[in-house]
Amino acid sequence: MLWAKDLPLDQMIHRFTVGEDPVTDLEILEWDALASAAHARGLVWIGALSAEDGRNLIGQLQTLQGQAQRGELTIRPDQEDAHTLLEEALTNRVGEAGKRIHLGRSRNDQVAVAVRLWMRQALILLHEGLNELSQKVLEFGTTHESIAMPGYTHGRRAMPSSVGQWSAAYLEALIEESQAVQSLDRRFDKCPLGGGAGYGVPLALDRHAVAQWLGFRRVHISPIDVQNSRGRLECALGHELASIGLVLERLASDLWLFTTEEFGFFGLPDEFTTGSSIMPQKRNPDVIELLRGRCRELRGYSSMLDHLAAGLPGGYHRDFQLLKRPLFQATRLTVDILRIFSRLFPELKVCRENLYKAMSPELFATQVAFEKVAAGATFRDAYREVAALVKSGQMAMPTEPVPVHLGAVGEPGLGALRVEAEILALWPAQRRLEQSRLEQDLFDLDSVHLKS
Amino acid sequence: MLWAKDLPLDQMIHRFTVGEDPVTDLEILEWDALASAAHARGLVWIGALSAEDGRNLIGQLQTLQGQAQRGELTIRPDQEDAHTLLEEALTNRVGEAGKRIHLGRSRNDQVAVAVRLWMRQALILLHEGLNELSQKVLEFGTTHESIAMPGYTHGRRAMPSSVGQWSAAYLEALIEESQAVQSLDRRFDKCPLGGGAGYGVPLALDRHAVAQWLGFRRVHISPIDVQNSRGRLECALGHELASIGLVLERLASDLWLFTTEEFGFFGLPDEFTTGSSIMPQKRNPDVIELLRGRCRELRGYSSMLDHLAAGLPGGYHRDFQLLKRPLFQATRLTVDILRIFSRLFPELKVCRENLYKAMSPELFATQVAFEKVAAGATFRDAYREVAALVKSGQMAMPTEPVPVHLGAVGEPGLGALRVEAEILALWPAQRRLEQSRLEQDLFDLDSVHLKS
Amino acid sequence: MLWAKDLPLDQMIHRFTVGEDPVTDLEILEWDALASAAHARGLVWIGALSAEDGRNLIGQLQTLQGQAQRGELTIRPDQEDAHTLLEEALTNRVGEAGKRIHLGRSRNDQVAVAVRLWMRQALILLHEGLNELSQKVLEFGTTHESIAMPGYTHGRRAMPSSVGQWSAAYLEALIEESQAVQSLDRRFDKCPLGGGAGYGVPLALDRHAVAQWLGFRRVHISPIDVQNSRGRLECALGHELASIGLVLERLASDLWLFTTEEFGFFGLPDEFTTGSSIMPQKRNPDVIELLRGRCRELRGYSSMLDHLAAGLPGGYHRDFQLLKRPLFQATRLTVDILRIFSRLFPELKVCRENLYKAMSPELFATQVAFEKVAAGATFRDAYREVAALVKSGQMAMPTEPVPVHLGAVGEPGLGALRVEAEILALWPAQRRLEQSRLEQDLFDLDSVHLKS
Amino acid sequence: MLWAKDLPLDQMIHRFTVGEDPVTDLEILEWDALASAAHARGLVWIGALSAEDGRNLIGQLQTLQGQAQRGELTIRPDQEDAHTLLEEALTNRVGEAGKRIHLGRSRNDQVAVAVRLWMRQALILLHEGLNELSQKVLEFGTTHESIAMPGYTHGRRAMPSSVGQWSAAYLEALIEESQAVQSLDRRFDKCPLGGGAGYGVPLALDRHAVAQWLGFRRVHISPIDVQNSRGRLECALGHELASIGLVLERLASDLWLFTTEEFGFFGLPDEFTTGSSIMPQKRNPDVIELLRGRCRELRGYSSMLDHLAAGLPGGYHRDFQLLKRPLFQATRLTVDILRIFSRLFPELKVCRENLYKAMSPELFATQVAFEKVAAGATFRDAYREVAALVKSGQMAMPTEPVPVHLGAVGEPGLGALRVEAEILALWPAQRRLEQSRLEQDLFDLDSVHLKS
Repeated sequence: MLWAKDLPLDQMIHRFTVGEDPVTDLEILEWDALASAAHARGLVWIGALSAEDGRNLIGQLQTLQGQAQRGELTIRPDQEDAHTLLEEALTNRVGEAGKRIHLGRSRNDQVAVAVRLWMRQALILLHEGLNELSQKVLEFGTTHESIAMPGYTHGRRAMPSSVGQWSAAYLEALIEESQAVQSLDRRFDKCPLGGGAGYGVPLALDRHAVAQWLGFRRVHISPIDVQNSRGRLECALGHELASIGLVLERLASDLWLFTTEEFGFFGLPDEFTTGSSIMPQKRNPDVIELLRGRCRELRGYSSMLDHLAAGLPGGYHRDFQLLKRPLFQATRLTVDILRIFSRLFPELKVCRENLYKAMSPELFATQVAFEKVAAGATFRDAYREVAALVKSGQMAMPTEPVPVHLGAVGEPGLGALRVEAEILALWPAQRRLEQSRLEQDLFDLDSVHLKS
Repeated sequence: MLWAKDLPLDQMIHRFTVGEDPVTDLEILEWDALASAAHARGLVWIGALSAEDGRNLIGQLQTLQGQAQRGELTIRPDQEDAHTLLEEALTNRVGEAGKRIHLGRSRNDQVAVAVRLWMRQALILLHEGLNELSQKVLEFGTTHESIAMPGYTHGRRAMPSSVGQWSAAYLEALIEESQAVQSLDRRFDKCPLGGGAGYGVPLALDRHAVAQWLGFRRVHISPIDVQNSRGRLECALGHELASIGLVLERLASDLWLFTTEEFGFFGLPDEFTTGSSIMPQKRNPDVIELLRGRCRELRGYSSMLDHLAAGLPGGYHRDFQLLKRPLFQATRLTVDILRIFSRLFPELKVCRENLYKAMSPELFATQVAFEKVAAGATFRDAYREVAALVKSGQMAMPTEPVPVHLGAVGEPGLGALRVEAEILALWPAQRRLEQSRLEQDLFDLDSVHLKS
Repeated sequence: MLWAKDLPLDQMIHRFTVGEDPVTDLEILEWDALASAAHARGLVWIGALSAEDGRNLIGQLQTLQGQAQRGELTIRPDQEDAHTLLEEALTNRVGEAGKRIHLGRSRNDQVAVAVRLWMRQALILLHEGLNELSQKVLEFGTTHESIAMPGYTHGRRAMPSSVGQWSAAYLEALIEESQAVQSLDRRFDKCPLGGGAGYGVPLALDRHAVAQWLGFRRVHISPIDVQNSRGRLECALGHELASIGLVLERLASDLWLFTTEEFGFFGLPDEFTTGSSIMPQKRNPDVIELLRGRCRELRGYSSMLDHLAAGLPGGYHRDFQLLKRPLFQATRLTVDILRIFSRLFPELKVCRENLYKAMSPELFATQVAFEKVAAGATFRDAYREVAALVKSGQMAMPTEPVPVHLGAVGEPGLGALRVEAEILALWPAQRRLEQSRLEQDLFDLDSVHLKS
Repeated sequence: MLWAKDLPLDQMIHRFTVGEDPVTDLEILEWDALASAAHARGLVWIGALSAEDGRNLIGQLQTLQGQAQRGELTIRPDQEDAHTLLEEALTNRVGEAGKRIHLGRSRNDQVAVAVRLWMRQALILLHEGLNELSQKVLEFGTTHESIAMPGYTHGRRAMPSSVGQWSAAYLEALIEESQAVQSLDRRFDKCPLGGGAGYGVPLALDRHAVAQWLGFRRVHISPIDVQNSRGRLECALGHELASIGLVLERLASDLWLFTTEEFGFFGLPDEFTTGSSIMPQKRNPDVIELLRGRCRELRGYSSMLDHLAAGLPGGYHRDFQLLKRPLFQATRLTVDILRIFSRLFPELKVCRENLYKAMSPELFATQVAFEKVAAGATFRDAYREVAALVKSGQMAMPTEPVPVHLGAVGEPGLGALRVEAEILALWPAQRRLEQSRLEQDLFDLDSVHLKS
């Protein structure tokens, strides 16, 4: 409902400034807890916090992280965001020490590091989604590899293709997106903590140590750029989601077209179709349409992030708060889309008979022309000759076996792509392992101490 | 001018389909010549073209490449595009053999490879532009490193900063963009040639050999994905241009704000300002405004590419033709923007006196609070205490020297960033070297032969 | 939380297809009830439903409309959308007749008419929001009309202006947007009901009568275009919201700039600022920043709608479902933004002293030049002369009273704009009156009868 | 070509600031001449210019307007823009008086009024394009009105439709866009001249008189809003172009789909197709694809304008210069797209046989269900019954004549739409007439005099 018109000013402003944050911020709660633990450990390390206080804080932060992961925490509207919830919980649980943890940081670097960690985790989830779908597409392609299928250009029948070749296309695109996800992780691999409000803090922080504890290979050196990177990195992730969306929009569009009555190359399982409220005979490909529409929505989210990030001078601005929601929503949506596609492929029916019927002779015209070239004609002359034969209905089908190259119908390259996919697929598991090891170390209270 | 309304149908259609291509395609002419030479060499390699024909073609292609680079070629409207110009020129110069070169390829993979090579070259130019600007920002920051300057959050004075710290922010962002450019090059490093119209060709092409000759480490295996990648890769480059634009829009916005009468931190050289047609007293920061606006235009181009790439099923579509112009324009524009900024920094004046005046005592409140923490208070209590002092006008300036950490005002990290920048800066030179070596090999007529 | 990975297929698909609809659709529930009542009345009118069934249905629909307006209804996930809730409720309450109401319509025109009615209601709310803000800006401008203020071009001091002239600018822009809102209402004023799934229904519906009962002046004749207009009309509204956002983004940017320490022209009330977590001395203009960011978000929503509407052939597609959420969210957000601005203006402080100090002599250079012209010089010569005087610091202040014209500082036109605003302001009240009358007639059971 | 790297600074800056303006500005040259004539007449009117000088200036401006319209003028790079060309030409031709014309105006309101006049002229051209296409669609629909055609929902065969019903859809959409164009003209109908640099001028201008001479019904009162409206109005036009693009993208998508081998409902004339470079047998629908892609490009332009207009505080900024090019390009492109569609419709072939074959019995299932309802069943029960019959292959075709309503297949409403279209079609002619009358009056030297 639109806001009550006559709310007292303070309540109205509170609602406007807090917005959806109490829900949105649940996403970063566990990452805020993790980064806070590293920060506390860092304060102990440089002697700005007693080891005892540090251990109490870190112990509670581990508990809070677990609660956040299990969805047991709620941010009250008056708490506004994840950071206040965390600070209040710490103060309740460990008393005075809870008021010490904010030494040497600001909300500005606190939210930057939590979002950065969230984004790196999101890349793992995305990569897993890409892996799973790649696997399903590969299985589909392998099963039906040699079934003939017309290849289309300009949406018109063009040359002989196959279900294997069609599948290889989407497999190779998914592999490219996996690589792009890994590139993004390298881009995000800089620890913003220690940047304070945007100009550092008057404390001899050991930023390298904290970065390492949080799994970052580098320190995001400039505190101003830590703030200026708000928006820039969200847009980079948003663009990548839109790129995945573009691949899958084309896939959905193919499926939509190839499952019409007129094409009839593939069949959708019942779970992926629905009926009509007025037309008793209909089965509609709603899930495919929603997949297609959702891919477009990803472009919309990416564009929204572009608009939100724009138009500002350097330094922190409250506008950045608005980046979180579209970022989180778009990322989840992408993972969901990948999962639905992964469920679809094993159920997708291949309509051999319709495919066979669609392999009209004209598809082989290029092949006939190439035979003439092999017999000595120039390609341009052979082309003109065959065009005339087709027009007069006299083109004979090719007689020679068709030579192949990597990627051709006879050698669509599923094997080579499988190898690439399998190597890439190791990445998220390795990242999860690293992450679990560093969390173990980070929460190990025995090793919380002043540097020697 | 809008088209004459009553053109004959064929002329009208011709104008509409050709559009701006005769001009736009000049961009890819040299790359089309290069890729054509590799294709010809490949045909000889597999025995589909005689070595003599191959050498004639390759020799002429080298000439054409040179002419294209020197801007000596014009595409006639009736030729429509780069590819037809090239094929006609070859046929004119080497006769019959010119009609043989199109064997084993299609316009579709021909344009894909030319655009891909163009994009990889564009990445070199962009990287060089980033290098140059990084260097200028570094010099500026180093020269004025320790000049104090207020740091702003929410556009309000926040904490002490310095010209060095401000410069380091943009330097680190430019470094990140250089890395992103290199990542994109890895993404683009797949040879599309051999994909034909989108389904391969009936010929035993050696795609690995051709890829290597053109400097690609991998083959873009799936001919369908070669076509599906149209738009996807353009958008990836467009997004990166927009990301560079976002960095520079913030820089321009800072400069615009910091050169107002009210701030007065920096001064613009006369060349970067203009007068007013009605107000005799005025100097306007037009160049800064145009830089800012152009950065926004980059987002516009990126969005245009997103729209153009969308909404299509798999395979080649003529719509792809429209991707070229905004891609080329946006890329050039980015290089231009980088160059103008590079010219600005050495001329930018630092107004020490105004900066000094702007360093009001409140900026040091956090530092005072930290001193209280060092003396035993919790941060939250120290914060409240200092807030009260500031409000009552009784806050004394801090007395202790301020501790530093990497990125802080006292240690803005210009040295560490310089090292990173210098290592990255080697990349374009290395790529140019590789490129010049491969072109030498490619046009070496003695090595044009059938594989053994 | 991201979906559990191992949900059964049907549950996963259900969640994906239903999405946020059970919450989103609450927005259109009351409009669906209203349109259903008109449809039922229409079926009685043409003899396709008994008057008794019609009265039972319409009576219950009135009850349901009231419940919907009071927020008493919830859409269960298994009901998926507003339409199923309504049909189930009717069947529960009036038995067999509930199954008759879907005669002669489809979900496709049912949702089209509900969304259309929702959009027309949204225009009323937007217009009221614009009215209220116009009124506040007018009051602010009138109160401070003659306080001098520098006018800026290129962000540099340019000419004398006043708080009244500044206020008139935003008042005139808000008036323009009110007119645009009314134009949109004319665009939306076509009744889609009767279009069925997109090809009409095999029933002699009286579409003119139904349109009139629902307050539409015209029938949206083509059932196919009723479907094709999905997306087109949402985008039209989205564009208008973005246009309002553009006006208010400039207003927020002015306020952000003019409340900095460096400008200091206006002061923000405490309710509109917040503190910093690390800097004890700070007051940040968070509300202004969020207003600015939210205006940018409106552009994001508009762009999302553009992406969602694109890329489809004619007829209904399930993708349209995704249009509702961003449309509703963006509209509410705009109303909220307008309300916050309306609360701000009465509290906005004008810092006379700072404004006075900012009125530096150079601002009057144009006026001095014009005096020289009045004394016979050409403008170009006078311009050069004054420029030289300013440069040498010898320009004397103007001595003559400055002539005025409509819109000038001395005559900013608040009176003329007030008249325009007051006339426009009548529109939403008139629309509400029409709406209440038609609902009274529509739910009048005595007049439910077969046409004679 | 990318700029030479080592240009002298001033040349580089000049190129960057001038950009494409010398070409772009040719568009507004004639409007600048017209507005300048009104301004000169206004100066005479208030006694700020002698009648003799006024007549000399206005006489030359008429000459210049004619030269501009005939394309005889070129803007030199050193002149930069239309305004300088004009002022130089005047000074050359009438001497001293040429230096007087800039009294009482600024480049800022000069460009605002020229662009505003250009936009209003563009609306006439757009409306004429919409009229012409509406007419062609109407003729096509009338000729083939009763040819049966399947209606699709979700891209699946749904219900019986007809070529007449399909045509009516696009006709009604074009009518809606014509109305939107007229609404925009009302929005633009405010004269910005007299706003000066953004704060009015120190002269007693008669803005009402000047507005009237230029054909504006209202004065754009606030000089600040005259500047703030830069971007806002361009975006409004850009959005409308995108809306027209959305209608036509759906039309192009329909044509693309319905001309595939698989559908085969319509046939494209040879002029609208092209061959393939590798496949001798192919005819590709390139023109349709380019129309589709160009419609997407319009969305891209609209988005670019949104980005360019964003992120600025109030007042004039040089960034506005960048709005002109995309605005002009997008408008021309829209007119071109409309013209190509207008040429296509008379040539579009209707493939009766394929359409007939596509009318499979299931399309009539809804009609059969409605017959059962007429015989007493509830719709929901009839629906279930027919669904079962269809599934078992036992559904008999409907036997009763199908009742009709406005918009249904039997009454697609082409007549009603024709009337609406014809009334709307009068608008551009009326606007042209008004325009020609006012130009006659404006350039009538005898009536150039001081107001009495």
